[in-house]
Amino acid sequence: MIVVMNPGASEEDVSRITEKLKQMGYGVHLSSGERRTIIGVIGQRREEAAQALEAMPQVEQVVFITRPFKLAGREFHPDNTVIKLGDTSIGASELVVMAGPCAVESEDQLMEAAAAVKEAGAQAFRAGAFKPRTSPYSFQGLEYEGLKYLDKVRSETGLLIVTEIMDQFSVEEVADCADIIQVGARNMQNYYLLRELGKIRKPVLLKRGLSATIEEWLMAAEYILSGGNYEVILCERGIRTFEPYTRNTLDLSAIPMVKHLSHLPVIVDPSHGTGHSYLVPAMSKAALAAGSDGLMIEVHPKPEEALSDGPQSLNPEQFKSLIKDLKGVALSAGRLL
Amino acid sequence: MIVVMNPGASEEDVSRITEKLKQMGYGVHLSSGERRTIIGVIGQRREEAAQALEAMPQVEQVVFITRPFKLAGREFHPDNTVIKLGDTSIGASELVVMAGPCAVESEDQLMEAAAAVKEAGAQAFRAGAFKPRTSPYSFQGLEYEGLKYLDKVRSETGLLIVTEIMDQFSVEEVADCADIIQVGARNMQNYYLLRELGKIRKPVLLKRGLSATIEEWLMAAEYILSGGNYEVILCERGIRTFEPYTRNTLDLSAIPMVKHLSHLPVIVDPSHGTGHSYLVPAMSKAALAAGSDGLMIEVHPKPEEALSDGPQSLNPEQFKSLIKDLKGVALSAGRLL
Amino acid sequence: MIVVMNPGASEEDVSRITEKLKQMGYGVHLSSGERRTIIGVIGQRREEAAQALEAMPQVEQVVFITRPFKLAGREFHPDNTVIKLGDTSIGASELVVMAGPCAVESEDQLMEAAAAVKEAGAQAFRAGAFKPRTSPYSFQGLEYEGLKYLDKVRSETGLLIVTEIMDQFSVEEVADCADIIQVGARNMQNYYLLRELGKIRKPVLLKRGLSATIEEWLMAAEYILSGGNYEVILCERGIRTFEPYTRNTLDLSAIPMVKHLSHLPVIVDPSHGTGHSYLVPAMSKAALAAGSDGLMIEVHPKPEEALSDGPQSLNPEQFKSLIKDLKGVALSAGRLL
Amino acid sequence: MIVVMNPGASEEDVSRITEKLKQMGYGVHLSSGERRTIIGVIGQRREEAAQALEAMPQVEQVVFITRPFKLAGREFHPDNTVIKLGDTSIGASELVVMAGPCAVESEDQLMEAAAAVKEAGAQAFRAGAFKPRTSPYSFQGLEYEGLKYLDKVRSETGLLIVTEIMDQFSVEEVADCADIIQVGARNMQNYYLLRELGKIRKPVLLKRGLSATIEEWLMAAEYILSGGNYEVILCERGIRTFEPYTRNTLDLSAIPMVKHLSHLPVIVDPSHGTGHSYLVPAMSKAALAAGSDGLMIEVHPKPEEALSDGPQSLNPEQFKSLIKDLKGVALSAGRLL
Repeated sequence: MIVVMNPGASEEDVSRITEKLKQMGYGVHLSSGERRTIIGVIGQRREEAAQALEAMPQVEQVVFITRPFKLAGREFHPDNTVIKLGDTSIGASELVVMAGPCAVESEDQLMEAAAAVKEAGAQAFRAGAFKPRTSPYSFQGLEYEGLKYLDKVRSETGLLIVTEIMDQFSVEEVADCADIIQVGARNMQNYYLLRELGKIRKPVLLKRGLSATIEEWLMAAEYILSGGNYEVILCERGIRTFEPYTRNTLDLSAIPMVKHLSHLPVIVDPSHGTGHSYLVPAMSKAALAAGSDGLMIEVHPKPEEALSDGPQSLNPEQFKSLIKDLKGVALSAGRLL
Repeated sequence: MIVVMNPGASEEDVSRITEKLKQMGYGVHLSSGERRTIIGVIGQRREEAAQALEAMPQVEQVVFITRPFKLAGREFHPDNTVIKLGDTSIGASELVVMAGPCAVESEDQLMEAAAAVKEAGAQAFRAGAFKPRTSPYSFQGLEYEGLKYLDKVRSETGLLIVTEIMDQFSVEEVADCADIIQVGARNMQNYYLLRELGKIRKPVLLKRGLSATIEEWLMAAEYILSGGNYEVILCERGIRTFEPYTRNTLDLSAIPMVKHLSHLPVIVDPSHGTGHSYLVPAMSKAALAAGSDGLMIEVHPKPEEALSDGPQSLNPEQFKSLIKDLKGVALSAGRLL
Repeated sequence: MIVVMNPGASEEDVSRITEKLKQMGYGVHLSSGERRTIIGVIGQRREEAAQALEAMPQVEQVVFITRPFKLAGREFHPDNTVIKLGDTSIGASELVVMAGPCAVESEDQLMEAAAAVKEAGAQAFRAGAFKPRTSPYSFQGLEYEGLKYLDKVRSETGLLIVTEIMDQFSVEEVADCADIIQVGARNMQNYYLLRELGKIRKPVLLKRGLSATIEEWLMAAEYILSGGNYEVILCERGIRTFEPYTRNTLDLSAIPMVKHLSHLPVIVDPSHGTGHSYLVPAMSKAALAAGSDGLMIEVHPKPEEALSDGPQSLNPEQFKSLIKDLKGVALSAGRLL
Repeated sequence: MIVVMNPGASEEDVSRITEKLKQMGYGVHLSSGERRTIIGVIGQRREEAAQALEAMPQVEQVVFITRPFKLAGREFHPDNTVIKLGDTSIGASELVVMAGPCAVESEDQLMEAAAAVKEAGAQAFRAGAFKPRTSPYSFQGLEYEGLKYLDKVRSETGLLIVTEIMDQFSVEEVADCADIIQVGARNMQNYYLLRELGKIRKPVLLKRGLSATIEEWLMAAEYILSGGNYEVILCERGIRTFEPYTRNTLDLSAIPMVKHLSHLPVIVDPSHGTGHSYLVPAMSKAALAAGSDGLMIEVHPKPEEALSDGPQSLNPEQFKSLIKDLKGVALSAGRLL
């Protein structure tokens, strides 16, 4: 950290700060510029320390020079993390495709969707039994009943199951059913849930929050990692901007940036990211070209009858055709699909 | 709702939609413009219906013409909701001030802060026992121990207690301690928590999410109201924008807009809204002038020793002086402080 | 500036940077932390230098510790700038109100609006002869003919004239007509225009760009000041965010922040800032309470016949009533209206 | 357009609106829902009409059901526009690469950059003679002298020249030198400049504004097209969001969305879009995979000596290697590079 003093700070002001820093256990390195004194702080970055310093008289600002994440950072773990689930590896040269409907609506809908997803060549099946909905009057998911149908999908198709968890008290039930536990965008900073997920030994798919910075997203992963669960998959799903033509703005530059900063695998959800099924193929290709380790795509047997997210869902035929098109892009990116 | 068809839609496409609408129980009103047919849909707005329609062939878009909130809307309840807590009324002509430190740090810190807040004339005391922190390495709050100190504040000072709840499973403990239960910005769309808060009979202070639209904020309130708890206080605390000089961008236009759309009381938190104690006085005045029903302000006995949010906390002297200044603004707004 | 080196930087890497800095005329101050070397750079902040350094090998980032503006900054000019125009002072304890229609539409409309604005007590009249319109098919303003009608308003009412300039080649004509030349949000970074305005001796009202940071806004002012024209009035008019209920998000925290950083007067435009006439009164009061030096308000004799911005325009009666209400707020803020 | 009345609107209120609509030359179609009357307006969309209606009593809102652009829309011109410049076609199956330094700094720098760009296989050379810079103290470009060096690049290398125009009064000089005239992000809504560019017969590269919606961007193109110049190339270069790790957020979903709405070619600038040279390769590939018609990339012989944008510039070797990698992606997208 660096403490920047006001131009009017006296020697006394500066020594008050250096005293405080020493009390906090930090080393200190003074440097006087033309108009300002700056104090280099030697030791671990700590938010509390920075805030306390910033509240002291004659301090203009405290500047961080290191990133706040540790276990999630590439400095800590230079090689890519690869997560193995049976025959599937996430974060390796092979790409992963997770597909399925937004919500578990019924046994029939689910089995039909699963068959289509399997046939097209996806490795994992996604569907929500618990649904976070903006309106209390909207369909809220089949909840525990939905988990049963997902169990059936797994046993009948052999697909990996990805499903969303909504609170820390259903961890056991969801972990029993899911191969990968999804944390939705609205829960990215539900720290009690993240802490609980740090204690289990199942991969967690962590969606980026609607207005989360990349730093906050990696810090959410840090919560899980710091609990001892090292298997976190990041998922970019669009951020909120002023643009109304798309549901969100899919931030694909987050992919190479996360790869630069972190060793964790990262995938992309172009369905939520755009909100329109006609944009999904182009953005799926772009995601792979940008270096994504995989995709999460909404597929519904009959999008026009879906209880949620129909406009952004592919039908089975569209999905099959997309998977075919993606193989070339994967190859050109040196990856396998 | 209005369904807008593509310019190329055939009569058959249109009748497929009207058929579907009738199945859904809607009335239908056809209207042909120069290039497009539009279908007026008569009946209750429903997200699911809109999404299903938007996923049908030759539909360009579905446009809502009513707001999605019902119980939270002024159409439903034309008069302002007033919440009474002992001698204090929230949403009436009298203004409410809630003040205190970001976090419960220790018994001493808390009692000192409470005494200062009480002396300056605030009606309610705020402090978090459970703290949502971006970093797992930051101070996470005293949790249940913190609640005990808050109990002591109430019994010794008579101040109303406002404290944050982090999940639906501590509702009972928090409700025992708090006069007003605060839902933080990160939990604004934690629907399981909101549903649980709909079942109790304690006022809930609902902070606006970091990137929540006003509509989503009112829909979060709708979750609580639809459960039967009609005492919701909205709290504007800044939204996330591209501006880096302030921690958030305090959206004061949300105050008269909420008053226009809804009957619920709304207050402002200029401390989180700006992130700098030197901006708090001006924004407190502006909030009252904009029609806010009150303020939530961070006050710490020694901001430079705070374990969180020191740079945005007022010290007791600054707070006292601010309250004095606010009286004139309150008067000019026809309100009492 | 501070240059932060990568953890893996060698002594050679560091000395390459210090060499370069010395060539650039900077003093250098080395400091080694636990994992990183940081280089304090002594001398004037320069973008070019920072970018060149950031492009060098093993440099992680270059951090600025001073603000880029000089003449616009309070460090340079500690007292508030006060602009005098006849009996009116802008930036002093007296508040200024500029009001009028969005566009000059006809002589009659203009004279009627001016009479209403004058009667209600405003000091300045605003109306655009040149109109920046999103659509090429919208009314583009009366242009030079409009300036003639504005001349008439001034001579008949004695109101100060504020009108927008669209390019550097009409500076002479606009300056002949206007007492204050307005630079619109879309032209805030039209640097050729700003440079030209630096050469004249007329006050310039500089609107904040739709997505301009406060720093960029002050740098746009710096362009004008650095040309020798010291009379710049800043005008907050809302920034672009994700919120659709309001046309823009009026950033009132920019008022005390600008006052903190700069000596220039700053006013608020609640009409463009919100887009709804029913939000204008509340936001006008809030602006004054936040410390604004004045207001710019859209007033149209018949908003429902306006060629632009009708929904955000007050009619004369509403404006008169608002001015009356503002007097109390002004007083409570220690200002005069 | 559709006019939505307030729930409380009387028959008289409604007939006042229909009367007004008829005066404006519109057809009218009334429709009464459960609580609200809505009025379908038959005829051309016009902003002025909508605003006037919205300012009338008992009108809740006016909803547009068509897009505001005409000549830029696919409804008007279903086939892709292809722009031919010698052997190069923009918008056809062949992809275009424009590369070069941010600014013309000197004859030597320019010729060296041009040779590298040519050798790597780009068809066009980009460099700015006129530079829009945030600070008045930064390098402002060589201006007319710079144009001379660009002439030399063209005559010696045969590369097409792309260079930025800053105002409508240098159209002639810039058009003499440039094969493609670039309008920068800050000038996207400089309507006087756009109108002038509508009068010439040279392709215009129109960068998206920092906070421009896709609709506003297409409306800016509409200004040029409506003047009679049909050769507009759109260029996505990142929008402003809350994310600080990247300079801007490159909105690649704008590519397929523009293709959906418009017939105009669209390319991507990953250099400004990300601000970091290490992100440029991934985002270049992603852009092509998303369907971009080409790329604009910053290349500088010595990025660490660049007078601007060094950190986001590739050196010649990096650029050459990128072009090689892009060939595969192009093929997988069914395009040629």
